[in-house]
Amino acid sequence: MKKVVYQGARGCFSELAARRFFDGPIKGKNVSRFEDIFETLKNRKGVFGIIPIENSLTGSIHRNYDLLLEYNCWIIGEVELKITYDLLANHQAKQKAIEEVWSHPIVLEQCRRFVGKHPEFKVRPVYDSAGAAEMIKKNKRLDVAVIAGPGIGKLYGLKTIEQRIEDDPQNFTRFLIISQMKEIVHGKDLKTTLVFGVKNEVGILFRCLSIFALRNIDLTKLESRPIISKPWEYLFYIDFNGSIEDENCQHAIESLSEAVGYVKCLGSYPVKGWSK
Amino acid sequence: MKKVVYQGARGCFSELAARRFFDGPIKGKNVSRFEDIFETLKNRKGVFGIIPIENSLTGSIHRNYDLLLEYNCWIIGEVELKITYDLLANHQAKQKAIEEVWSHPIVLEQCRRFVGKHPEFKVRPVYDSAGAAEMIKKNKRLDVAVIAGPGIGKLYGLKTIEQRIEDDPQNFTRFLIISQMKEIVHGKDLKTTLVFGVKNEVGILFRCLSIFALRNIDLTKLESRPIISKPWEYLFYIDFNGSIEDENCQHAIESLSEAVGYVKCLGSYPVKGWSK
Repeated sequence: MKKVVYQGARGCFSELAARRFFDGPIKGKNVSRFEDIFETLKNRKGVFGIIPIENSLTGSIHRNYDLLLEYNCWIIGEVELKITYDLLANHQAKQKAIEEVWSHPIVLEQCRRFVGKHPEFKVRPVYDSAGAAEMIKKNKRLDVAVIAGPGIGKLYGLKTIEQRIEDDPQNFTRFLIISQMKEIVHGKDLKTTLVFGVKNEVGILFRCLSIFALRNIDLTKLESRPIISKPWEYLFYIDFNGSIEDENCQHAIESLSEAVGYVKCLGSYPVKGWSK
Repeated sequence: MKKVVYQGARGCFSELAARRFFDGPIKGKNVSRFEDIFETLKNRKGVFGIIPIENSLTGSIHRNYDLLLEYNCWIIGEVELKITYDLLANHQAKQKAIEEVWSHPIVLEQCRRFVGKHPEFKVRPVYDSAGAAEMIKKNKRLDVAVIAGPGIGKLYGLKTIEQRIEDDPQNFTRFLIISQMKEIVHGKDLKTTLVFGVKNEVGILFRCLSIFALRNIDLTKLESRPIISKPWEYLFYIDFNGSIEDENCQHAIESLSEAVGYVKCLGSYPVKGWSK
C-alpha cells in the first residue's frame, strides 16, 4: 500500500483523490497544514504527498504553488475529483426530526440553494465537517444532520438523507501527487509543469509563450506568483501537454532557458481526469 | 472632501492609501468585507471605493478581481503604498515594563525577525490590530504593546517604541480606486485594465498576447481566474501601459475582440507609484 500524506480530516477529498489516483486503499497520514505535508516528505523516500492545486470554482491554491518550489518537490501525477456534498445523519434519525444542519462555512456556501429551500433547519457553521460527523455519531444525535463529502458518511457510518446537494454540479478539484524523489515517468499523454522567472521587459511573456506556440505545444495552465523582495516581478508556472523526454519539449525548454534567467521543471506526469 | 469606502479598521492601510491618492483628508466609511465596498457603491454617484489588488510578497487579492467584474465597477486610479509596521504603546509605558505584544497573525508573520529578537515579549495573536490599539489606550495598559501600521499609532495617540520592524522592506501593496460611474480619464501615462475570456484552444493566449506585443504595448500584469461552471476555462485580467483613448490601444482591443469571445475594459487610469 502506498504511503500518502494529506491535509485534512480522515475521509476528506484529498484522501479520496489519493485513493482514486492509486486505484485502491492507501496508507494515509493526515496533517493539519499544507506545510506539514512538505515537511513530512523531507528525506523520506517512498512516501507521497497529495495537494489540491486548483478548484474549478475558486481558482488556484496559490500557497501550494509557492510550497512546491520552496521544498523542491517533484510532481509524479495529477488526479481530478468531482466535489459533491451529501446531507448525512445517524441511521435512526428521521428527516422530520432534524432541527439543525452543521457544516464548514465554505461547504454551506456551496450548498446555498439547498439550505435556502429548507428554512426549517437551523444552520450552524463549524470548523470541521468531519469532526461534526464524528460527534453526531458518538453522541447519537437524532436532531442534527451534517453536510459533508461522500467519504465522511462512509467513514463514520452515517446514512445519506439527500445526495449531491451542492449548487453547482461543475465543481472539480485538481490534486497533485508529489514526492521528494525525482522520478521520471515514461510514457505518452503526460503533462509537464515548469516554473520560470521573468524581469520587467516589454513583451517578455509573449516571447516565452511564442517558444511553445511555434512548436505547437498546448499550454493548459498559466499561473503567476510574486517574487519575494522583487516587487512586481513574477514567477510563472505553466502546464503543457507533453513530456520532458519529448525532443520537441526539450527544445522548448532550452529556448526558454536562453530567454529568461531561471527555468525549473517540476515534473512530467500522468493525469487521471474525471471522465477517465 | 472625497467620500471613500474601504475595508478594515480606521487608520488601516486602505485608508492611508486613499488619503495618499486624493492628496489629503477624505470622508471615509469603513466596512468589514470587500463585498460591502461594492454594495455601498451601488447606485451612488460621487462615492469611491478603494480595494487592495496585489501585494508584492503575497500576490494578488483574487477575490477583488472577481468582485470588480461581478459589480461592474470602473477603475479610476491606482496607488501604491509601502507597508511598514511599528511597535506602539501608551505614552506612559516603558519598554522594560512591556510583557506582551499583540497583533494580527499576518502582521506577526511579517515581523518574525523582530519578535524572534525579543523572547521577553509574550506574543498574542489578535483578530484586529486596530481594535487592540484602541483597547490598550482605553484601558491604559502599560504592559502591552501593539504592532500595527503607522496610521494606527497616530489615530489612537500611541507612541512609537520602535519603527519599521517588518522583516522585508520591499513590502508594497497596490490599491485600486473604483467607482460605479464610468469616468474616462484623459491624459498621459495611464494604465488600462482589460478582462477577456478564452476557450481551450492551442496557443490562444499566445495569440492574444501577440496583439499587444506587435504594437509594442507593455503588459505589466497578467492574472487568470476560473470561469464559474466551465471547468478549466479562464478569464484573463491584463494591465498595460496606455489609455483606451490611444489609437494604438484601440486597435489592440478591436483585434482582441476578434480573437476571443469576451473582452471588457475596466478602466484607464493614472497610477501613483510609491516613488512618485
